[in-house]
Order: sequence, then structure tokens, then C-alpha cells
Amino acid sequence: MGYPDTFDGFCVDSAKTWNQFRRAELQPKPFESHDVDVQIECCGVCGSDIHTVTGGWGEFKAPLCVGHEIIGKAVRVGKDVKNIKEGDRVGVGAQVWGCLKCDVCKSKNENYCPHQVDTYNANYPDGSTAHGGWANYVRAHEYWVFQIPDAIPSHEAAPLLCAGLTTYAPLVRAGVGPGKTVAVCGIGGLGHLGIQWSKALGAETYALTHSPHKVEDAKKLGAKEVIVTSDDKKWAEPLAFKFDFILNCSDMTNKFDLPTYLSILKVGGQFHMVGLPDKPLPEVPVFAFVGNAAKLTASHLGNHQEMDAMLKLAADKGVRPQVETIDISEKACKEVVERVRDNKVHYRFTLTGFNKAFGTK
Amino acid sequence: MGYPDTFDGFCVDSAKTWNQFRRAELQPKPFESHDVDVQIECCGVCGSDIHTVTGGWGEFKAPLCVGHEIIGKAVRVGKDVKNIKEGDRVGVGAQVWGCLKCDVCKSKNENYCPHQVDTYNANYPDGSTAHGGWANYVRAHEYWVFQIPDAIPSHEAAPLLCAGLTTYAPLVRAGVGPGKTVAVCGIGGLGHLGIQWSKALGAETYALTHSPHKVEDAKKLGAKEVIVTSDDKKWAEPLAFKFDFILNCSDMTNKFDLPTYLSILKVGGQFHMVGLPDKPLPEVPVFAFVGNAAKLTASHLGNHQEMDAMLKLAADKGVRPQVETIDISEKACKEVVERVRDNKVHYRFTLTGFNKAFGTK
Repeated sequence: MGYPDTFDGFCVDSAKTWNQFRRAELQPKPFESHDVDVQIECCGVCGSDIHTVTGGWGEFKAPLCVGHEIIGKAVRVGKDVKNIKEGDRVGVGAQVWGCLKCDVCKSKNENYCPHQVDTYNANYPDGSTAHGGWANYVRAHEYWVFQIPDAIPSHEAAPLLCAGLTTYAPLVRAGVGPGKTVAVCGIGGLGHLGIQWSKALGAETYALTHSPHKVEDAKKLGAKEVIVTSDDKKWAEPLAFKFDFILNCSDMTNKFDLPTYLSILKVGGQFHMVGLPDKPLPEVPVFAFVGNAAKLTASHLGNHQEMDAMLKLAADKGVRPQVETIDISEKACKEVVERVRDNKVHYRFTLTGFNKAFGTK
Repeated sequence: MGYPDTFDGFCVDSAKTWNQFRRAELQPKPFESHDVDVQIECCGVCGSDIHTVTGGWGEFKAPLCVGHEIIGKAVRVGKDVKNIKEGDRVGVGAQVWGCLKCDVCKSKNENYCPHQVDTYNANYPDGSTAHGGWANYVRAHEYWVFQIPDAIPSHEAAPLLCAGLTTYAPLVRAGVGPGKTVAVCGIGGLGHLGIQWSKALGAETYALTHSPHKVEDAKKLGAKEVIVTSDDKKWAEPLAFKFDFILNCSDMTNKFDLPTYLSILKVGGQFHMVGLPDKPLPEVPVFAFVGNAAKLTASHLGNHQEMDAMLKLAADKGVRPQVETIDISEKACKEVVERVRDNKVHYRFTLTGFNKAFGTK
């Protein structure tokens, strides 16, 4: 078999062999009238991929093909597809389907649709499986296929499809802009984009990091000031009531002293988590919320309109992920998941060379 | 000594003897130009009083005179006081001072002022102590002394000063009104007011309770429907994505299965805690927030304008606490703290008969 009946991807067989990839045949969902097939040019590597292959976020069914920061070319469009045509350079992020009928979808919150289908490790209502982008093709409903502005090269566009949207949407939903003071916590794959969005949106932007060696980088990305957090809680004292919003990009929040972080929020401010640790948050006294009505929250991606707006802002203001590219292969897949797990990437990987690896063009 | 140099109150000497009250002389702060002395007519009994005398919220300095739902008569007003005159019937809630100069106060969030002084178990910047309302007099800055609408009898006005404001302010800050769907969780001293506010503000109001015997009561208070929660998580399933706002009035949230409660919120909805448990909240997985961007938060009282608006709404719409009155004495103080601790009150106590007990008039 082969495309369009089957796809071909780099897959993992179990959480125990999380760093061992092999090429495998994948069965896509049946092609329907709103579907778009994308021949993949490159795909980003996301923390989610590592949480999933290692089993940190739960079990999976093998063979598992991860990857949800996909850029490629639309090669087949269903007869009811309106906004994508064959040949378009498009992107697919971490969601490929939602019902578009429920109250959640109708309120433009389709990224929270209770029937949503993630790009991989997920099933459609008909039981077929969604497969990720470390593959030659991906199939997605047109509503989750996005035009990529010409100004953004594919290898830099890829990480925007998940990391970009994940960090952009909560900022705009919280009204971040001129007159707001924002802290971005955790300067890595998500945080280095968070700083840039916050600045591009016009907010006074600070960075919080455990790592003194990231101070200069955070300033270059747009932070007005960088605060090195440490085990000594005194770092927070001069910052009491300072921030309207904290975008927490760390996925080790389970180790945070949350009351200290909540204490630096303005009244009613949000501590907003976009990095998702495998382990639960620690016990927190309710009094940690009472002194300033702090809100603890998290989010999942963004909606269609936010994706379009994010890509436009990136094109207009030059927001770009810092990307290391590596041509896809079994060895490359092993290298990227190991280095992302060990935080040895500065700051995102994009797997490239798909045409060569898969014999597409 | 005696008034105005000293006050006379029913006090507790230690957390170990939390239910043993004795009359003791209390030293008020020096009287200043913005201060108002209130001769107390009656005073509510609040869960905070019990958390404090039992040491659940931390240590205290004896003698401790609690009570922060105070109604009485202004008998002395400082020379710079503008909005209160001698003879006015006024109320004092759970805060008696704030700096009114910091950014927090200037943003009309003086109830979060980092320099705020609680009505009891608190010190002023000059080191003097604030004493509560189970006493003959209380001294407070005019900004925390409120005119009481004629329509509300004193014994019913008293609980509004803390329980009323605490449940009203978070609803209005969250924009609760027509078109919003609200759940009030925990039908007791706070919750029975929460239901009434939510309905008076025009929201579709539900009640959540562990206690099947409270169903009828909650309906009489204005709940459209009452959901009996239980250890079986299935109670929440039909309510997924239903509520814009949950006002959690329970002070046993440490025993809640929080992910289940968060799951019934609309996208971006708040689970807002106004009951404050002695023990910390349990561990929560971040994924409990991700499915609907739920916000976990809490608050402390309300501001001056919210107090005035709350009292007006109560007067206009007939919102009233259900109050059992009992004349103040050492025995009565013991009875009320024991019964509130054991949830044997329906739904608030107001201590009355102050003039007789203290020989004032």
C-alpha cells in the first residue's frame, strides 16, 4: 500500500523503547469532504512529543507517530473545502478535528471541544486513528489547516503551529497589551516565544528563570528585565503585586513554590500554565490565593482565529522561534527526543529533509 | 478606665480554651482625625471567628476579642470624617484600616492593601492592636465604616458586613448577571447568601450540596436546581462545560475532588473559593485545568464601593441572611462558637443585647 491509502512515519512501539524509532505504515482516517491531505515538508519537535512517547502523559497505542508542528503542501482537498487549495503551503498544529457543532465550538473554543481529536495518539468518532507529522503525509479537517504567510520560512513556521499558538492565545485572551506588565517564566521552547509575543503585543515584559546563564538571551528576546529565581524566596518580595499576568512555560511546576509565584501578581492576576508536568501540582494553602485574588489556570492551544492572528503577528513583527534543523531519520528522531528531554536544545528542533527521506517531492 | 480610653469585650485567652470567654479590658488604637467610634448594638458570628479562636488560621495574641460583623451607632467622629456623623447607624466589617496610598488601594482594591488591618487579631502600623466586635465599642477608619440602609434591621444587617460582602464581591467582579450560569457550592452561612446574590444579580443559579436535606432550602433561597454531590463522580458528568462561575462557600475544599468540580466550568470559568479551610488544597494535576482553561481562585472581602452596592441590593431586593439571635454573654459566646464549628446553625448567628450586657444605651 501507499499514499493515499496509507502513510509512512517514524514510530515508537512502547514507552519503554521511547527513543527507538522505526518506519511503519500508518492507516489514516477515511478521506471526507472537508479533509485536506498535506504532504509534509518539515515538522517541529514539541515537549508534548516527549511526554507522550515516554508515557508521562499516559498510555498510547503503538505504532505511535508523534509530531504536531507540521508544514507542508496541500496535495488533496475535499470537495467542500473552501479556504485551502491544492499547492498551498499550509500548517497543521496539535488538533485535527472538532465537532464544530457543540456550544463549546460555537463559542469559538473549538480547542476545548469535548469531541476534539488531537493530531496523534487520538481516535476519531468512527474509531480511526490520527497520526502525527513525523511522516510523509497528514490528513486533517480544513478548519485545522492554516495558510502560512510567505514571510516565514517553513522550518521557522513549524514550531509556531503548537508552541507559538500555545503561548500566544492565553496572552491575547487575558488582554495583554500596552499598559500591562507580564512575566514569562521558564525560558525554553515555549518561553522564548512567550517573551517575544508579550513584547510584540506591547506589554512591559519580564522574564523569570532559574538559570543565570539565560539572562542575556532573555534580554535579547525582548525582556526588559530578567529575574533569577532561586530557593531563597526573597527574589519575590520586591515584586509583590507587580504582574498582571504570568505565563508559566515550565513543565516542572510540580516543583514550584506556588505561593511565592502567586504573590507577585496584581489583584486578580493570572498564573497561567502552558507547560504541563507529568506530576500533579503540590498542595497549596487557599491563603496563597486570598492576598491578591490570584488565579491559577492553564490552557490548551488556541482557536482558529487566534492561529491566523498569531501567524500574521509573527510575519509582521518578526517573531521567530530559534530553531535547530536536523534531517529526519531513525537516528535523528532518537537524537531530538533525547535532547529535548534533557533540555539540550536552543530552543526548538525542526525535523527537515522529509522529501528526501520519504521520496516525495 | 473605660470608654473612650478602653473598650470592654468578651475574649478568649488561648486556642486551647477556644470556647471559654471572659470579659476583658481592651486597649484601642489612639483616636485620630479619620476615626469613627461605634457603640455596638449587635455583631454577627462568622466562620472566621471560629478558625481564629481555635488557632486553625494561626496563632493569636490574647486577650482575643473576635467579631467583625458589627452594627452600631457612631458616637464619636474624627475632625476629618466626611461621610459619617454622630448618631448614624453604621456597620463595620472585617477590615478597619488600609493605607489608601499604595497602588493597590488606588486601584480600588484596598481590601488587598499590603498594609491593611483586619478588624481583630491585627496590629496597626504604630503597633496598637485592633479588637473585634464582641465588645461595647469598635474604632475604625471612616473608609471602613458604612451607612446601613433603613430597610435592613440591625440583626440582619450584621452578617452582611462580612458574609454578605465576601459572597457578593466575587460575583460582581466576575460579571455575574443575566445570561450567566452560576453554581453556589456549600449551602451554609456563606452559601445561603451566595444563592440570593446570584439570583438578585439576574444569573441562572444552581446549588451544589453534599446534604440532601438542604435541597428544599436551597430552592427556597432561589436556586433553579440543586445538585446533590456525592463520592460518585458521575454527578458532574451531565454538567460538563455548564457554569460560568462556581462560588465555593465550603471551608472543607481540602477534601474536594477538585478536578471534578473544575470539569463543570465553561471555558475560562472560575472556581472561586470564599470559604477558607485550615488545611491546604490537595495535589491537583495540571490537566484538570487544561480541558476548559478553568481558573482556580479565591478572594478577600470586597472594596468600599462593593460594600455600598451590596447593602443597597440587599435593601432593594430583599436579600437577607437567615439569622438566629442570641443575647451576648460568656455562655452565649461559648454556645455560638461551638455550634458554628459543628455546623449547627441555620444559617447565621447574630449576638444581640449589647446595651444590656455592657450598660450602654
